[in-house]
Amino acid sequence: MEIKNKKWILKERPQGLVKDSDFELVTESLPKLEEGEILLENLYLSFDPTQRMWLNDLPGYLPPVQIGELVRSGGMGRVLESKNPDYQIGDLTFGFVGWQTYCLTKAEGNDRFRVVPELLPIPTMLNVLGTTGITAYYGLVELGKPQPGETVLVSGAAGATGSVAAQIAKIKDCHVIGIAGGKEKCNWLKKCGVDEVIDYKNTNVHEELPKIAKNGIDIYFDNVGGELLETVLYLINLNARVLLCGGISSGYDSRNLPSGPSNLFALIIQRATMQGFLVLDYLPKSQKAMEEIATWIMENKILHREDIQEGIENCPQTLNRLFTGENKGKQILKI
Amino acid sequence: MEIKNKKWILKERPQGLVKDSDFELVTESLPKLEEGEILLENLYLSFDPTQRMWLNDLPGYLPPVQIGELVRSGGMGRVLESKNPDYQIGDLTFGFVGWQTYCLTKAEGNDRFRVVPELLPIPTMLNVLGTTGITAYYGLVELGKPQPGETVLVSGAAGATGSVAAQIAKIKDCHVIGIAGGKEKCNWLKKCGVDEVIDYKNTNVHEELPKIAKNGIDIYFDNVGGELLETVLYLINLNARVLLCGGISSGYDSRNLPSGPSNLFALIIQRATMQGFLVLDYLPKSQKAMEEIATWIMENKILHREDIQEGIENCPQTLNRLFTGENKGKQILKI
Repeated sequence: MEIKNKKWILKERPQGLVKDSDFELVTESLPKLEEGEILLENLYLSFDPTQRMWLNDLPGYLPPVQIGELVRSGGMGRVLESKNPDYQIGDLTFGFVGWQTYCLTKAEGNDRFRVVPELLPIPTMLNVLGTTGITAYYGLVELGKPQPGETVLVSGAAGATGSVAAQIAKIKDCHVIGIAGGKEKCNWLKKCGVDEVIDYKNTNVHEELPKIAKNGIDIYFDNVGGELLETVLYLINLNARVLLCGGISSGYDSRNLPSGPSNLFALIIQRATMQGFLVLDYLPKSQKAMEEIATWIMENKILHREDIQEGIENCPQTLNRLFTGENKGKQILKI
Repeated sequence: MEIKNKKWILKERPQGLVKDSDFELVTESLPKLEEGEILLENLYLSFDPTQRMWLNDLPGYLPPVQIGELVRSGGMGRVLESKNPDYQIGDLTFGFVGWQTYCLTKAEGNDRFRVVPELLPIPTMLNVLGTTGITAYYGLVELGKPQPGETVLVSGAAGATGSVAAQIAKIKDCHVIGIAGGKEKCNWLKKCGVDEVIDYKNTNVHEELPKIAKNGIDIYFDNVGGELLETVLYLINLNARVLLCGGISSGYDSRNLPSGPSNLFALIIQRATMQGFLVLDYLPKSQKAMEEIATWIMENKILHREDIQEGIENCPQTLNRLFTGENKGKQILKI
């Protein structure tokens, strides 16, 4: 049986939001498997802001996607064929499947896949039990060390990572302030139990935040970067922890860097820490996070939602939804 | 015996470098001691950049000096009279003596004094065994955790704190790059054993640093703040530690804040930490640092120098020397 794979390759480096014409959707016939290889049928793609960064020609924590190469993306696929003893036909796997309908791979190095038990619907697993949930867990719990009664601020709070971070902070008995764009997202955050919600699209967040964060800020889980950080630094408490998870406000386009906060000095006055982290470092020990998050989901302590687009041809526009803020919850594409 | 005390009080809040006319030098007769009080003859004043910040009307880690109040300053004095059982006549004491010739105090709270053994000349004790040495020790050793072979960058490296930090980094078998202003300071740093020295007054440090820091930067001990941090962030290695010790480039004048680095994103890519700290937090456990530093001084592993001005009337201009870079080593004033 000959298998036709449809895949998106990078044609030129995008500027700002991506255009379909930055890529090319090509169809290829897949060869027969060689020893050690597996063939996956890709089921769902995960869309994360970091994917946009991989399209820039800059050194990062992973090499940039090169012109002519398949666009890198996490996702879930099912093993159709296997000549690799680590994978059985029918296994559900998580890893870098890429923007394509099938994935033929040696499953080595960064292309290794994790075989996952089918506990929950796949989109849910890609969300709260995927990299987004694990990012939130390790960033907030391990680095932030939230203490009962502390004030935790989360930006991008209605996003896949932010909403889990905010809800874990509630579970840890913190007072949680969430910032999100638009009434719909803010209402959803209130449903999630977030104590105070600021709608940055309909209020001046720089004026609102100091009024709302009356007791200062102990932990800032930052998904957006940019100007907001300066406002937050004026409000941090002694020994505050600023956790840099992402910088969506820059569009993840390195040509569009905002100037930084003029008051880093606040970190000295308050003996505070600012720390960047990447989920990659925590994947080897993700089991603990997944088990705890799964328990919280079953106990209804963590609400989640997925925004599921459909069709391989919609990959580029689905990526943009993360940066326009159109996505309602974890951005996923069903192939 | 009536004692006349000469003291500098704050008359108006300075802008940028201080002027004599921002202060007033007044003479007062001191009253007799009451129960619990001590009278010190002030011997040497310590000048530190943070003193300039206390003159701003902004909340900080210590309350601002108010208009009409004595200017706050660390220093050493000798006990002339005591009605406090914790202090004996003749004791040499370290604490906030202020810009004055005598100090009559209850020695409570922030005005407590530490009785110090007379191991070394007083200016040396105020330097390497004083807050500057302790700052360098705890910042670099406890927070920076330098490992053999790592590259440590120190800005303000010829300053009192920077030079000790740079030399401790050498003791810890690191490769040390120091940045200082002017040939004289750079030559002195080379004598201290610093591996690479950049003279920011005679070269473009933003161009030189990337050439010299070929293996990247693992620890940045930052005394200057400002633009340099952005250049450094492009050069940090995985798990780098950026230690914010001070921001002399701002002149410690809150009306003169430089915009921050546009590339804080580097902290995410490199999973790096930026941390502010204050020596105040470490004073209770300063004994360990003092003993270790004293040993290194006796072994000639740490060179030090003091810049000693004289005369109480020169306090304001002596403070400015820290910001003009005129000081050669730890800035001290002999009363």
